[in-house]
Amino acid sequence: MSLLVVGSTAFDTVETPHGTATECLGGSSTYFSLAARLFTPVRLVSVVGADFPAKHRALLEARGIDLTGLQSKPGKTFRWHGRYSQDMNSRETLDVQLNTFGDFQPLVPAPFRDTPFVFLANGAPATQRSVLEQMQAPRFCVADTMDLWIERERDGLLELLRRIDGLIVNDSEVKQLTGKTNLIQAGRACLALGPKLVIVKKGEHGSFVFSNFFHYALPAYPTETVVDPTGAGDSFAGGFMGYLATCDSISLWNMKRAVAYGTVTASLTVEGFGVERIAAADMETVERRYHELQQFVTGG
Amino acid sequence: MSLLVVGSTAFDTVETPHGTATECLGGSSTYFSLAARLFTPVRLVSVVGADFPAKHRALLEARGIDLTGLQSKPGKTFRWHGRYSQDMNSRETLDVQLNTFGDFQPLVPAPFRDTPFVFLANGAPATQRSVLEQMQAPRFCVADTMDLWIERERDGLLELLRRIDGLIVNDSEVKQLTGKTNLIQAGRACLALGPKLVIVKKGEHGSFVFSNFFHYALPAYPTETVVDPTGAGDSFAGGFMGYLATCDSISLWNMKRAVAYGTVTASLTVEGFGVERIAAADMETVERRYHELQQFVTGG
Repeated sequence: MSLLVVGSTAFDTVETPHGTATECLGGSSTYFSLAARLFTPVRLVSVVGADFPAKHRALLEARGIDLTGLQSKPGKTFRWHGRYSQDMNSRETLDVQLNTFGDFQPLVPAPFRDTPFVFLANGAPATQRSVLEQMQAPRFCVADTMDLWIERERDGLLELLRRIDGLIVNDSEVKQLTGKTNLIQAGRACLALGPKLVIVKKGEHGSFVFSNFFHYALPAYPTETVVDPTGAGDSFAGGFMGYLATCDSISLWNMKRAVAYGTVTASLTVEGFGVERIAAADMETVERRYHELQQFVTGG
Repeated sequence: MSLLVVGSTAFDTVETPHGTATECLGGSSTYFSLAARLFTPVRLVSVVGADFPAKHRALLEARGIDLTGLQSKPGKTFRWHGRYSQDMNSRETLDVQLNTFGDFQPLVPAPFRDTPFVFLANGAPATQRSVLEQMQAPRFCVADTMDLWIERERDGLLELLRRIDGLIVNDSEVKQLTGKTNLIQAGRACLALGPKLVIVKKGEHGSFVFSNFFHYALPAYPTETVVDPTGAGDSFAGGFMGYLATCDSISLWNMKRAVAYGTVTASLTVEGFGVERIAAADMETVERRYHELQQFVTGG
């Protein structure tokens, strides 16, 4: 089934101990789409400036990503510049230029309003809610958020949480959102805020899945070559939602497989600068890593 | 089969966000023994001062821990005083008084020298090697170490690593030891230093097992009530070695179960101050948590 993502498209400048990549294609909707398209067709809703080159559009379209919802506005595309620490477990934002993304009003094209699977990438809760209001009862809607909104738009975020099926956040965010320092307590408390499903991303430590009926933990794929962690979270969400959109039912078993596929797509993203590695990935590589991850979890 | 541990016995004063416990029974050999005795008889080799009370001896002996190798010296028992951060993921040592542990020369009683399973808790590498020299070809010998020895006694530690079967360390230690910031690379590099088995403890993030033939990852037991993390690592090692000592063979399958049992005994320890919770634990509780952990890993 089809899958719609609403989020940013950006030019990222990234400094890591492996080197610097300047103004490469990035943004949450881009990373999400490039992971999800490995499983299912993706409909992208985002905004770019007049400086967004045809080659980036071509890269996305060639991979089955429908850009009907990609608005082009006068002005420049969103730019982000960040630097990672030596161990790449933390990063510093050196510069942000919102440009056309600053007043992004997502408009879901009419033919996309019945899309059954929806991912609301990190954005202002009011903007995320405006997307929900355009959709015709999606079957499964998952959102991401960040510290900024938890701090400044808490009420709007809580309102959103009551209306979505799942939340994908990282460990520090779920602790901040719930005020719990214990991650298991934080996961449970987050479920009480509305979502039926809470997925907590822990970077190199893998992820936790919380629902009212089961908890589940999966380690990260044991990658040895982290080149650029940018986009790992959105690629995780893309693999997760992309696989789930191919399933007959959103069962525990399918969800577990989806988390593993998300783990694999995230592992591919971090092995190259920007979208370079995930854009080049194919299902053969994904399936091989999926089985390697199973081996890592079962011991062989 | 029988299991011997060589390590410290201490009085710990611990400050956590849950309160303060003053001069409670602690030390690596104590935590290890109280976890391991749930599975197999344990022989403890350590040292205490004249201030070590009969009630602590009675607590250990009542749980099948043989104290023949517990030397009693004039002077005071080792004391440690630490304070944990609000989220309990870091701690600060406020005071250390080595006392009788300062010049601890472990003497393995003659009847214990053929013990097949040996755990060398954290200590000076030269001291750990002196134990090995007293043993008659143990079947499976595992050691722990810490940042101090990695920094100051590197050559002695490398010599030890060539002579033991397994090393149990935490994530920052294995990175420091190998100079690798990626944990998978660090695990592999550590194997190259000699041990056939490297277990990396990651606290709330679980553990990784590295061998030349398989890698394995297990999350931590999803505890919601961390009262005092002191002794978690030694309790992990105790559950791991204790279970393994009951097995016919040191196979992959038994090792995986042993890691899960170590995870469970560590989870019990952290739920009470000092040894209070692990000393009160029984196998019924351990088995229940073992199955809960399996559910957490498999999703039900």
